[in-house]
Amino acid sequence: MKKLYIAGPEVFLPNAREQMNRKAALVRSYGFEPLCPGDLDIPPQKTKKALGLAISRVNEGMMNEAHGIIANLTPFRGPWADVGTVFELGYMCALGRLIAAYSNVADDHYTRLLAYYGNRITEGADGHARGPDGLSLENFGMADNLMLDGGVERRGGIVATHHAAPDELYTDLTAFEACLKHLSMRPDAGDEGLRPEELDASNDG
Amino acid sequence: MKKLYIAGPEVFLPNAREQMNRKAALVRSYGFEPLCPGDLDIPPQKTKKALGLAISRVNEGMMNEAHGIIANLTPFRGPWADVGTVFELGYMCALGRLIAAYSNVADDHYTRLLAYYGNRITEGADGHARGPDGLSLENFGMADNLMLDGGVERRGGIVATHHAAPDELYTDLTAFEACLKHLSMRPDAGDEGLRPEELDASNDG
Repeated sequence: MKKLYIAGPEVFLPNAREQMNRKAALVRSYGFEPLCPGDLDIPPQKTKKALGLAISRVNEGMMNEAHGIIANLTPFRGPWADVGTVFELGYMCALGRLIAAYSNVADDHYTRLLAYYGNRITEGADGHARGPDGLSLENFGMADNLMLDGGVERRGGIVATHHAAPDELYTDLTAFEACLKHLSMRPDAGDEGLRPEELDASNDG
Repeated sequence: MKKLYIAGPEVFLPNAREQMNRKAALVRSYGFEPLCPGDLDIPPQKTKKALGLAISRVNEGMMNEAHGIIANLTPFRGPWADVGTVFELGYMCALGRLIAAYSNVADDHYTRLLAYYGNRITEGADGHARGPDGLSLENFGMADNLMLDGGVERRGGIVATHHAAPDELYTDLTAFEACLKHLSMRPDAGDEGLRPEELDASNDG
């Protein structure tokens, strides 16, 4: 049975365990085994730093064991995804595993950038759209930063988006389930994952 | 000569090329070859989406070729690092390459969370510090999210921080140079990178 690492900021929710259990049950219903941050007890450590390192080790261990990842990229503490989840997405892309990601905010990357800048965008001398701070905006018709969407899609994954109700931002599982459906229909990618030369073969526009 | 992928949000700066050139010169002065997003021309594409995918492919190609990464985790468009850079850090950690990261904001992760919440933190029933939104705060004495610091430090890398002047937030190279110094003193990690069992051996507290 293929194992999926369930990455996302739900670990920070007050009812984190309940949310992860809901996700885990849905994962199992699609025939996968869920591996979730927080599943394993972390042995007591002498310092806060050692505890953080121990959690990192345990989570990386779960990722190394997993055949794939579903990453929750819903904006978290700002317009952008939780950085821990993004790290894990990059990690699993490099390992060539099965990849899917989703967001419960349907606005794409460029739309969220416009909102961040209050629409105060100008076109620079070099043709790039820039904010008042001079920083250029990505506008590639992608849900998120191009490294994230590109990493997922070039590996045959999907970035599913859904407009969740505000009080269900981290609990709505519609797009999460779309990821499960997609992964359940993927041909077997093999235990060793995709080799670099297997990327892009049929996925690029 | 070992190649280092130079990851960071400088690509969005109005004077991106100039900044990357400054970094590249410093990298070469330490005996490494710099590989930088933006170095290679991207062939014209038919759609915005295809262009984004092409850039993703080229950047991943550079990472696959690189022996290591220096990731600029300076807060970008908010209190947290640029997600593209964080993706790349996770990618290179999974490949077991040489790793270093830095930030030009010296405040650690917990301090920045406190600022984000205006210090309105309470201790929940489960003993976790939580913001007014109920989300728990990581407090591990780390510069950033535990997956980032943990990923770097467990591989023998450093997360260098420096309090840069506000108008030099993305241009100050003090902490970047600290990363170069550290990497130049690393024993040869080998072209195939660190295997999972090589992690943690001497790095955990």
